[in-house]
Amino acid sequence: MGNTFGHLFRITTYGESHGGGVGVIIDGCPPCLEISEAEIQVELDRRKPGQSKITTPRKEDDRCEILSGVFEGKTLGTPISIMVRNKDARSQDYSEMAEKFRPSHADATYQAKYGIRNYQGGGRSSARETIGRVAAGAIAKKLLKQFTGVEIIAYVTQIQNLKTEINSDSVTMGAVESNIVRCPDGIMAEKMIELIEAMRKAGNSVGGIVECVARNVPVGLGDPVFDKLEADLAKAIMSLPATKGFEIGSGFAGINLTGREHNDEFYRDGDRIRTITNRSGGIQGGISNGENIIIRTAFKPTATIMQEQKTVNISGEETTLTARGRHDPCVLPRAVPMVEAMVALVLCDHWLRNRAIALIAPEVKVEPN
Amino acid sequence: MGNTFGHLFRITTYGESHGGGVGVIIDGCPPCLEISEAEIQVELDRRKPGQSKITTPRKEDDRCEILSGVFEGKTLGTPISIMVRNKDARSQDYSEMAEKFRPSHADATYQAKYGIRNYQGGGRSSARETIGRVAAGAIAKKLLKQFTGVEIIAYVTQIQNLKTEINSDSVTMGAVESNIVRCPDGIMAEKMIELIEAMRKAGNSVGGIVECVARNVPVGLGDPVFDKLEADLAKAIMSLPATKGFEIGSGFAGINLTGREHNDEFYRDGDRIRTITNRSGGIQGGISNGENIIIRTAFKPTATIMQEQKTVNISGEETTLTARGRHDPCVLPRAVPMVEAMVALVLCDHWLRNRAIALIAPEVKVEPN
Amino acid sequence: MGNTFGHLFRITTYGESHGGGVGVIIDGCPPCLEISEAEIQVELDRRKPGQSKITTPRKEDDRCEILSGVFEGKTLGTPISIMVRNKDARSQDYSEMAEKFRPSHADATYQAKYGIRNYQGGGRSSARETIGRVAAGAIAKKLLKQFTGVEIIAYVTQIQNLKTEINSDSVTMGAVESNIVRCPDGIMAEKMIELIEAMRKAGNSVGGIVECVARNVPVGLGDPVFDKLEADLAKAIMSLPATKGFEIGSGFAGINLTGREHNDEFYRDGDRIRTITNRSGGIQGGISNGENIIIRTAFKPTATIMQEQKTVNISGEETTLTARGRHDPCVLPRAVPMVEAMVALVLCDHWLRNRAIALIAPEVKVEPN
Amino acid sequence: MGNTFGHLFRITTYGESHGGGVGVIIDGCPPCLEISEAEIQVELDRRKPGQSKITTPRKEDDRCEILSGVFEGKTLGTPISIMVRNKDARSQDYSEMAEKFRPSHADATYQAKYGIRNYQGGGRSSARETIGRVAAGAIAKKLLKQFTGVEIIAYVTQIQNLKTEINSDSVTMGAVESNIVRCPDGIMAEKMIELIEAMRKAGNSVGGIVECVARNVPVGLGDPVFDKLEADLAKAIMSLPATKGFEIGSGFAGINLTGREHNDEFYRDGDRIRTITNRSGGIQGGISNGENIIIRTAFKPTATIMQEQKTVNISGEETTLTARGRHDPCVLPRAVPMVEAMVALVLCDHWLRNRAIALIAPEVKVEPN
Repeated sequence: MGNTFGHLFRITTYGESHGGGVGVIIDGCPPCLEISEAEIQVELDRRKPGQSKITTPRKEDDRCEILSGVFEGKTLGTPISIMVRNKDARSQDYSEMAEKFRPSHADATYQAKYGIRNYQGGGRSSARETIGRVAAGAIAKKLLKQFTGVEIIAYVTQIQNLKTEINSDSVTMGAVESNIVRCPDGIMAEKMIELIEAMRKAGNSVGGIVECVARNVPVGLGDPVFDKLEADLAKAIMSLPATKGFEIGSGFAGINLTGREHNDEFYRDGDRIRTITNRSGGIQGGISNGENIIIRTAFKPTATIMQEQKTVNISGEETTLTARGRHDPCVLPRAVPMVEAMVALVLCDHWLRNRAIALIAPEVKVEPN
Repeated sequence: MGNTFGHLFRITTYGESHGGGVGVIIDGCPPCLEISEAEIQVELDRRKPGQSKITTPRKEDDRCEILSGVFEGKTLGTPISIMVRNKDARSQDYSEMAEKFRPSHADATYQAKYGIRNYQGGGRSSARETIGRVAAGAIAKKLLKQFTGVEIIAYVTQIQNLKTEINSDSVTMGAVESNIVRCPDGIMAEKMIELIEAMRKAGNSVGGIVECVARNVPVGLGDPVFDKLEADLAKAIMSLPATKGFEIGSGFAGINLTGREHNDEFYRDGDRIRTITNRSGGIQGGISNGENIIIRTAFKPTATIMQEQKTVNISGEETTLTARGRHDPCVLPRAVPMVEAMVALVLCDHWLRNRAIALIAPEVKVEPN
Repeated sequence: MGNTFGHLFRITTYGESHGGGVGVIIDGCPPCLEISEAEIQVELDRRKPGQSKITTPRKEDDRCEILSGVFEGKTLGTPISIMVRNKDARSQDYSEMAEKFRPSHADATYQAKYGIRNYQGGGRSSARETIGRVAAGAIAKKLLKQFTGVEIIAYVTQIQNLKTEINSDSVTMGAVESNIVRCPDGIMAEKMIELIEAMRKAGNSVGGIVECVARNVPVGLGDPVFDKLEADLAKAIMSLPATKGFEIGSGFAGINLTGREHNDEFYRDGDRIRTITNRSGGIQGGISNGENIIIRTAFKPTATIMQEQKTVNISGEETTLTARGRHDPCVLPRAVPMVEAMVALVLCDHWLRNRAIALIAPEVKVEPN
Repeated sequence: MGNTFGHLFRITTYGESHGGGVGVIIDGCPPCLEISEAEIQVELDRRKPGQSKITTPRKEDDRCEILSGVFEGKTLGTPISIMVRNKDARSQDYSEMAEKFRPSHADATYQAKYGIRNYQGGGRSSARETIGRVAAGAIAKKLLKQFTGVEIIAYVTQIQNLKTEINSDSVTMGAVESNIVRCPDGIMAEKMIELIEAMRKAGNSVGGIVECVARNVPVGLGDPVFDKLEADLAKAIMSLPATKGFEIGSGFAGINLTGREHNDEFYRDGDRIRTITNRSGGIQGGISNGENIIIRTAFKPTATIMQEQKTVNISGEETTLTARGRHDPCVLPRAVPMVEAMVALVLCDHWLRNRAIALIAPEVKVEPN
């Protein structure tokens, strides 16, 4: 259970970090969309390990193969199966990981829940699982872009205590991709990179915040009451590895304001009803209002550190563990495309849901497609 | 769409603030559980308006009626239908609300999405919808308590800039219910009450933070990868009205720590594997680890304020609006049972899910029931 | 579990035959559809007991009340809750039913599965549960009729060994409703009525076949591979009480033909591609092809008979039981609106699903609405 | 949409007949079940083309590969991904199939619904899609066998007008597999084989009936009201290609009986409550009663015949088509494992569902595992 996400644009991922491969089935993608492995690969390359000096130095190509659902370059309306082979990583020695639970990892809980785990790496809880999400997100992004004009851009705004503010109205993908930490503030980015490198040298790790903006979102996405757009976004984001918090619009900081200060008053802007401020973060009553959707996600410091830690083994005996191998000292640079993918999946699903009911009422304005 | 929550313990709510009534259908409640309208009413009374001087003075009894699924005091295993009649509130004058969109409410987005709305109050986006959630949560709580010993307690830790810290290991329901703001720190509670009263007099409003702890949670709840326990909790909480943020364990503050400081090292405690710290908030890899689950939710200041605000009307013309009527200057005291209910629904659903697979593997330890 | 049907037009029913009431929540009905309790009541009246001399003489009004989701005569896009109160049937003596399992009823299996049952009648397995289906079906029918022109007509073609053939292209609702057995062949209807009356006098019962045609069905409904239109119809129909078989188009009789005889060759009819024959029953590859959808359902003879039968009691001891009370000697006349309702629910759901993807591909022809 | 089946034991299939491959993801399989590719291959070999002189002579190995979810020979509790590569069938000439719609195939409806189709074979509507079902069914069968003792055996009882009766209490898998038509009546099997061969020589085709029995089924499977066990079986079966009818127990023939004759009276058999007859087919009120589940499925004659037929082309012009290539003159021998797989999937899903609630009520007897 739990490996499927979405209602009309529905994805199912599979795969452990070691074994035959990882992948995704996308069910519900409309037909006749042009899509290629190359387009999907662009997003996978933003996610892959070994892409820069501040990510894990593991080199994996993560080449995707479309097994079904696309014919002569276009989607068929049938399930799209995308697979990435695992490298044949014949680890010499898993005996320590087979025996000892890594602190703040999923080893102990998987063992307790299932009575078994693939200890040759993170297994199913490995960030490698997100390959399927990012691949599916690439298609969702393209659909949204092509039919609604929605643009989704995520970026790093904080690494440990280094924080910056980014103008979400004007930030560009180019600015995000201009440096390896994916923070559009170039000066702060330099400091962040230095901090991450220092942490790696110390065998330690850091976390931070990824902010994400969705622009040109059609009015009307979201299905109250349980499938409010922010609720589905929260679930999508909090299902990513290493996330500890989610907020939208004014978020936790909004608490300091009174209602008078916090409310988003309306005004008329040509044909559109808009709000003067956007503390709501683009969603009111669970439904998008056409303003930018802005969310922020807290990622914890990477659990794998190169220092000795107390733990217990599979027999329940206390012991210590010192991680070896090559790991990310900070997950955020590679988390940026994951966040974009999850936001795209949620918006795409609700956009399709909305189409189902939108034509019925002549009073309902549907965004042009 | 969007009015159903849960997979095995599945609820569907219905109802606008005005009209025949509101309610919930619970499908999947195991049979032979003793349950009465009186037990459900206890929770509804914690949620109802008019319960204290800092909530809306509207008096509504919110008496529940069980229409099905219970026979001779026990659940049948069939759908439990619980209904609360709306009072016959023949509002003299809805003309202003019919015409003008209240800022930071759902009026404009419902109108845009559906081309129609029940303008005699908040309609479906009214907090009155949460009656069904709280009623269902009462049953989920009882199931969890009786069969697993899980205890769920929520409480207010912050109102605007007034904050306190509560010991989640030892806080009691009695302490929470000892004052009308539901903050177990009695001295801070007094200040919070004063602040809320001052806000009401000023026709303004405030928000804050509700923290919730779940104790004695069985190990193994949560279904990676999309239905991680924290992901389902995030969705559950962010589907409540007026929520702007969610965090678990170390949350946003955890960013300031390094991995070395943040990791939860393991130790042996009798038969149990436990963690020295609990920055994970009781969930690792999406699966409960037996430590206390601790989450925090940011609620925005109430959108309805008694001051003039800029808005537009249904014809798109700019105008102003000054709310009338009786409203909560702060939603948090009444939000406390809602948060508990949502946490209970998520845990109950995953507890049932876990039972489906738990007996298969002899290695899997199932919590005694 | 199991009390929800449909994906986008989704219904959840609740209620036992005895207790507060029965009803349905419809989630996903598009907004701005005009609907009234009176329109729903028309269908409920076709289903209700006591409507003729060949149904049970129990008199129940089955008046429906819309509790939510409709405002000023139009749907809101929010859940529509429809309730019918049970009559306060203080049965003098349920002791026999509490103790003994009625043969070919659900008493024994409910008791085994749930360890409890509402023995004051059929409980959840009572045909009274179908009130919710028929009410929801009334709305689905109206949506389909108004936006797509679909017409759904069911009728009796066989009672025990009395069978007739009805022209499904031309049969009218008027012809169906012209007699109490709902067989449009008036001469055969008379014989069927006589047979049913004879059975009632003998304390025995009979079954038969209900055929149903859906005309003007849009091309393209159905979602291969598991949600093929005929698969969803089969599930819908086989979830009705007393059904033992389902077939579409040529059905079981088609086995006698060779492929050469069975295939539906294509021809051109103006703008439409049509088939010369319709052995496919309007569905090919799981997708509607625009020809009439024709299905047939076998209903077993009513299980409740007024003759002594062998059974066991709740303690597992062998005994005998002779039913008392007032029952239908044949369920088919009242099953006709149930079949129509289920077909309408399936078509409506798939029509909404299809809208979600239909606009994407310019090549896709969408039926005018 | 529509490519997922099941609630707790949930499968998603993908793949067209031509393209990279076909496969299935199984989500919800309990952990620690021993399973191998070889065990799955056994079932796939019963389904594969070219297995005998009465199936299509196309030779395809259909070797399966497990990509995830199994570690050191045991299931992990994570999604099991099973893939079968398509052969690189560079068809010389698809131009005719690209242009003309084959009668009683899915070509025209796929084209109408999606505006595109993979015309290099049957695409998604190819029986090749059932590879994923059969692979998943192999695992479901093993789970059921190992933990509940359930045995599922399907067999052919009728080919066109050649029919036989098989004793479902005693039929063995060995008898089914003793001949290539999979009819346990050896004498009738010979005649059936002759008929099928004659049809192939004539370029024509035939259909028939597959019966399936499930023995040792636990009492209590099935979730009224919509997910009645027979309703889920009907959907499962009617989602297989070429099915036109489904019946359970007495089925359509039961109509000829009166209630007196049709009812299954109870008796005591040791600890069990049993029924003297089994016209209910092992299910009462939607819940299994422990008697054998018996269903029958009508398969139409294969649509692909080697004779000229009238059709239209993609431009809507009338034309004729004569199929070429190698096809099954009768689908039934290969449909037998498909039917078994679908029955296994339904029973396994409901068995897991039942576990979720079964321990709650001490009164409920759970089958030993």
